[in-house]
Amino acid sequence: MAIYHYNFPTRIAFGSGAIALLPAALKELGAARPLIVTDRGLASLPVVTGTNELLAAAGLASSVFAGVFGNPVKSQVTAGVAAFRAHGADAIVALGGGAAIDVAKAIAVMIHHPGDLFDYEDEKPGARPIDQPLPIYVSIPTTAGTGSEVGRSTVISDDETHVKKIIFSPRLMAARVFADPDLTRGLPASMTAATGMDALTHLVESYLAKGFQPMCDGIALEGVRLLARSLSPAVAFARRIEAGERALLTDPAHDAARADMLNAALMGGVAFQKGLGVTHSLAHALSTVCDLHHGFVNGICIPYAMAFNKDVAAGRLAELAHAAGARQQTADGFIAWLNELKQAIGIPRTLADAGVTSAHLDRLVGIAVADVCHPNNPKPVAEPDFRALFQRALTGG
Amino acid sequence: MAIYHYNFPTRIAFGSGAIALLPAALKELGAARPLIVTDRGLASLPVVTGTNELLAAAGLASSVFAGVFGNPVKSQVTAGVAAFRAHGADAIVALGGGAAIDVAKAIAVMIHHPGDLFDYEDEKPGARPIDQPLPIYVSIPTTAGTGSEVGRSTVISDDETHVKKIIFSPRLMAARVFADPDLTRGLPASMTAATGMDALTHLVESYLAKGFQPMCDGIALEGVRLLARSLSPAVAFARRIEAGERALLTDPAHDAARADMLNAALMGGVAFQKGLGVTHSLAHALSTVCDLHHGFVNGICIPYAMAFNKDVAAGRLAELAHAAGARQQTADGFIAWLNELKQAIGIPRTLADAGVTSAHLDRLVGIAVADVCHPNNPKPVAEPDFRALFQRALTGG
Repeated sequence: MAIYHYNFPTRIAFGSGAIALLPAALKELGAARPLIVTDRGLASLPVVTGTNELLAAAGLASSVFAGVFGNPVKSQVTAGVAAFRAHGADAIVALGGGAAIDVAKAIAVMIHHPGDLFDYEDEKPGARPIDQPLPIYVSIPTTAGTGSEVGRSTVISDDETHVKKIIFSPRLMAARVFADPDLTRGLPASMTAATGMDALTHLVESYLAKGFQPMCDGIALEGVRLLARSLSPAVAFARRIEAGERALLTDPAHDAARADMLNAALMGGVAFQKGLGVTHSLAHALSTVCDLHHGFVNGICIPYAMAFNKDVAAGRLAELAHAAGARQQTADGFIAWLNELKQAIGIPRTLADAGVTSAHLDRLVGIAVADVCHPNNPKPVAEPDFRALFQRALTGG
Repeated sequence: MAIYHYNFPTRIAFGSGAIALLPAALKELGAARPLIVTDRGLASLPVVTGTNELLAAAGLASSVFAGVFGNPVKSQVTAGVAAFRAHGADAIVALGGGAAIDVAKAIAVMIHHPGDLFDYEDEKPGARPIDQPLPIYVSIPTTAGTGSEVGRSTVISDDETHVKKIIFSPRLMAARVFADPDLTRGLPASMTAATGMDALTHLVESYLAKGFQPMCDGIALEGVRLLARSLSPAVAFARRIEAGERALLTDPAHDAARADMLNAALMGGVAFQKGLGVTHSLAHALSTVCDLHHGFVNGICIPYAMAFNKDVAAGRLAELAHAAGARQQTADGFIAWLNELKQAIGIPRTLADAGVTSAHLDRLVGIAVADVCHPNNPKPVAEPDFRALFQRALTGG
C-alpha cells in the first residue's frame, strides 16, 4: 500500500510505513529532543523501541515516557510533565491508543500553562484560557478507535473520583499525524473489537447529531462503510493470529482491514466536531462508575441507544443501514446489523454480561444526565430516559 | 437559519448573515486596510457597496478593485497588484464568483513574490517556489460553484493564448471563509445552473478519482445529495424571480436551496484535493478554445464522460445514483439522472447546441490531452478517447 498524503483537517500521512516519515517531519518542525509519550504496555514492544531507535538514528535525542495505563488520569499527566522537563524536551510524540494520546495532549498543555490541569476544563466557570503556545506535538495512533490523533480535545479523569474532564483547544490539534496501519497489526481481538466499536459510535452519533455540518455527515457515512467492511474481518484475523497463525499478521487482507479501520477511526475523530449523543453519555457514566473500557461500553450500549433514537431519526438510521450494507436498509435493519456485529466480534449483549448491576443504576443515571454529549443527541434525553436506557441495556429487555 | 462554525478544512462561517462577521475577523487577523477584489459586474451592487460600507463602519479603510471579468487573465492580476499597492492595503477580501476569488489569490501571491505570475506555475520545470508569506486573505463566495473559496489553487489564463495556468500553494488557503447563502439569492437562472453543474462535476469527479481518500469520498457523496435536492429548485426559483416574482428572493424554500447549493460547492472544493477527471479536461479545452463558461461546459460534458467511465466505475456510479436519489440506483440510472437534470435546468444537450463545431476538434483534443486533470480519472484517457468523447458530446451520438 502506498503512502497517501492528506491535508485534511490537519496534515495526515496515511499508509503502511508512514511512521518512517516521523524523523524528517520532526526536524522540519524544529524539534531536536522529542519525548515519546506512550502506554506502559507498549514500552518494551518494537513499536516504541523501534520508534525511539528511528529517532536516534536520525540524530534526534529522544526519550520515552511510558506512564500511561488504564483510563488516563491527572497524575499520569503530572508525571509526564516532569519527564518532559527532566529530558529538556522540545517536542511530544504521542504514540499509542487514545489514552496515551490524551495524556500527551494534556502534557503539552501544561508545559507553558501554570496551575492545575483541571483549571483548564472546557466550559467550567472561571476556567483558565489555553492561550500560550504548546510545544511541538505530533500523534501516531496504534489503535483504530478514539480518533484522538486528529482531535482538538483530551479527556482526563480525576484520580480519586474517576470523573472525566474535557480540555479543549484548537491548539491541541497535532502538527502532523502519522497513521500507519502496520502499527495496529498486533492488536488483540478483544481490543480490536472494543476500539472499533468506539470508532463506530463516533461515526454513528456524529451523523445523527443535531446541527448542519454536511461535511461531517458525509465523512461519518463513509467511515461507517469502511468500518462495516473491516471490523468483523479484522477481529476474525486477530483471533486466528492469537490462536497461532502468526503468518496472518502480514496477510494482505488483514492489512486491508486494519487500514480501513484506522481510516474510519480518523474519520470518526474528524466527524465528531459536529457533536455526539446519548450513547456517549451512557458510556462516560459506565467508565466512571464501573471503570469499563470506553469503546467496549459504547459497543454494548449503541443498539439500545439507537432504538431510543428511532422515532426521531428513522431516515438517517436507514441511510446508516445503507452505508453499512445491512440486509434491510431501514432503521430496524441498522439496529439488527449492530446486534449482529456485536455478536460476531464478541461484544456482550448486555451490561449485566459485563458485570454491571442494578446497584450501580442511580449513580450511572446521575453522571449520564450531567454529561456534555447527550445535548447534541437528535432526541432529548431526560433523567427517566437514562434510567430506562440503562435498565434495558442491563437486561437486554 | 443560524450561523454554524466549521473548522474544516479552514475556518468557515456558514449561514445567512455570515458576512456580518467579516469586520471583526479582519481586525482579529490584524488587518486595517483591506482591498476588496471583485467582479466588474458586482461593483455597483449592494453585495459590494454594502460590504465596503460594513468595513468602513467598523473603522477599516477599505477599497475596491473591480477589474475581474470573464475567464480570469493575468493582466487582471497585474492591475489588482497595482490597486493593492496604490491603496497601501494589508489584506485581500475576495468577494465574488470563482473568477474574482482566483484573481484575488493570484494578487496575494504577487505581493511578496518577484517576477511574473506564471513563473510560479505549478509543476512547471524551473518554477519559482511560493515561499514568502502572503498578505491576509479571506474569501466570500457569491456563487455556488467553483469552491475556490476553500481551495489552495488558482487558475489564471494567459491573455493572448487563453491557456489556463494553475498556481498552487497551501498558503493560498483563505484565513477565513464567510459562506453566506444570502449573497447568492440574486444569481440569474442560467448562472445558477452553470455554477451548480461546476460544483456537481467537482463532487462526482473527485468521488471517482484514483487514490484512497475516504474523507473526500464521503464529502463528495454528501455534497451530491445536497446538490441533487437543491439545484433544480434553485434554478426554478431563479426563473420565477426573473419573471417578476421578486418576493421569492427571500422565500424560505429558495433560501434553503441556496444554502444547500453553497454548502455543496464548498464540499466540492474540499473534495477535489483528491483529484478530478476527464470531464474537467474536456471543459478546460472548451474554455480555452471556445471561451465558454467552465461550469456550463462541465454540465454539457459530464453525462458523456460518465458513460465513458462506466465500465471501470459502475459501483461508484451506482452509489452516486443513490446519493442523488435517482430512480434507478445503477450507473445507467445516474447517467439518466444527469441528463434529466441538464434538461430541467436548461443546460444544452450537446456541444453543438453551444456553438462548438467539428472545426474546433483538433485543437480541443490537443489541449485536453495535455490537461492535468485526466490522469486522475479512474479510466485512462488517450488521444483517440478524447476525440471520440468530443465527437459524442458534439452531436449527442
